[in-house]
Amino acid sequence: MLKYIDVANRIESTIKEQKLAQGTKLPSLMNLCEQYQVSKTTMVKALASLEQQGVIFQVQGSGIFVRLQKRPGFISLTTNSGFTHDLSGYKITSKTLELTTVTATSDLQEKFECPSDEPFYFLKRLRYIDDQVLCIENSYFRQKLIPYLNREIVEDSVFGYIQKALNLKIGFSDKFLRANTLNTEDAELLSLPPKSPGFFLDELFYSNSGVPFDLSQNVYNFKHAKFFMQSINK
Amino acid sequence: MLKYIDVANRIESTIKEQKLAQGTKLPSLMNLCEQYQVSKTTMVKALASLEQQGVIFQVQGSGIFVRLQKRPGFISLTTNSGFTHDLSGYKITSKTLELTTVTATSDLQEKFECPSDEPFYFLKRLRYIDDQVLCIENSYFRQKLIPYLNREIVEDSVFGYIQKALNLKIGFSDKFLRANTLNTEDAELLSLPPKSPGFFLDELFYSNSGVPFDLSQNVYNFKHAKFFMQSINK
Repeated sequence: MLKYIDVANRIESTIKEQKLAQGTKLPSLMNLCEQYQVSKTTMVKALASLEQQGVIFQVQGSGIFVRLQKRPGFISLTTNSGFTHDLSGYKITSKTLELTTVTATSDLQEKFECPSDEPFYFLKRLRYIDDQVLCIENSYFRQKLIPYLNREIVEDSVFGYIQKALNLKIGFSDKFLRANTLNTEDAELLSLPPKSPGFFLDELFYSNSGVPFDLSQNVYNFKHAKFFMQSINK
Repeated sequence: MLKYIDVANRIESTIKEQKLAQGTKLPSLMNLCEQYQVSKTTMVKALASLEQQGVIFQVQGSGIFVRLQKRPGFISLTTNSGFTHDLSGYKITSKTLELTTVTATSDLQEKFECPSDEPFYFLKRLRYIDDQVLCIENSYFRQKLIPYLNREIVEDSVFGYIQKALNLKIGFSDKFLRANTLNTEDAELLSLPPKSPGFFLDELFYSNSGVPFDLSQNVYNFKHAKFFMQSINK
């Protein structure tokens, strides 16, 4: 792990463990360098990273302050930490509905910049929060990068398997969000009346070298899914 | 302006002017330092900032690469650049429906941590995209920080006025997102059939010293509003 990421994680852990409130002043840059035994460059990079993640805010000439990063019951769009982390305190479970091989639809061809005969694993799952359906997940995994998946793997953690067994490093992602009316099938799966609203979140995941490997098209139950994100000003 | 922000802006401008595609390799750290005549610390901070904004991605041992930051027709949730920037190419207009003084509701009291008698300006506007209603904006401006607003100011740019006339520096914001069924009034204002879905985006804006000054509760027309954001992995 890069040194500045390690330092950033340690500062973040301290803030969380001590449950520091928004606005709490942290030690100065120089004091933090001394405390964590790192150079100014490393600490500056760690603080910039924490600021952009919404963990702190820096006021020129005044100091470094804690920012409130978690809102109980809200799913964070800022961090990629997953439901289990965001919704701790709730019971999160899932059910696999389908795992098949498909070839690239026109949408996949465009998003992955791939030919129409490229094979993908298609995985359809339901995710539950306290035994209520939270969302329908439709994921397309590129077989070029993920050559093998089975029911056992997808019922555990696909991302865990990708990272550990395949040594694929997960990089960044693009998220696309909109509201729309649910179709009949999705409304039924979500146990909602016909024509209920749905929150649609598509996410395209890239490896750390910038190659897209997974498109997840998720439909959220509007009654249970609320999202939160933290913006920073440039 | 801080030097690293200036450098980050200049690198971003170059990427945009040259319309560099995602995956384009940029010069090395050392070459960038030379090109922009700044120290390694400043450049490291500028690159960290650009990475967290989704402008670039860095691959350890391999280089610095361009990331695609704009999707035509999508409103960016990553940057606070506003509709006019995100939806350039479309005609964006607005209409003021109401500008009054109100005292803090329980929601405002909680979000601003203020007493129930604290006065706010309430501003209700419609925003249009190519003459179609894009969203209903319900904004609450804290009079403690923004003592005066009138129709002329709100019909121009409130944030422009706040920064120029009041010298209030805008810091960060928290966004809350969800889907729900529109109520009768909102459906009518958005020219949509009753019980259409709505995309609800609440945004709480803070000054650069961390004091909340504006809560905007916006209801988007699901037919015209699509959102895009870029995540980074920690």
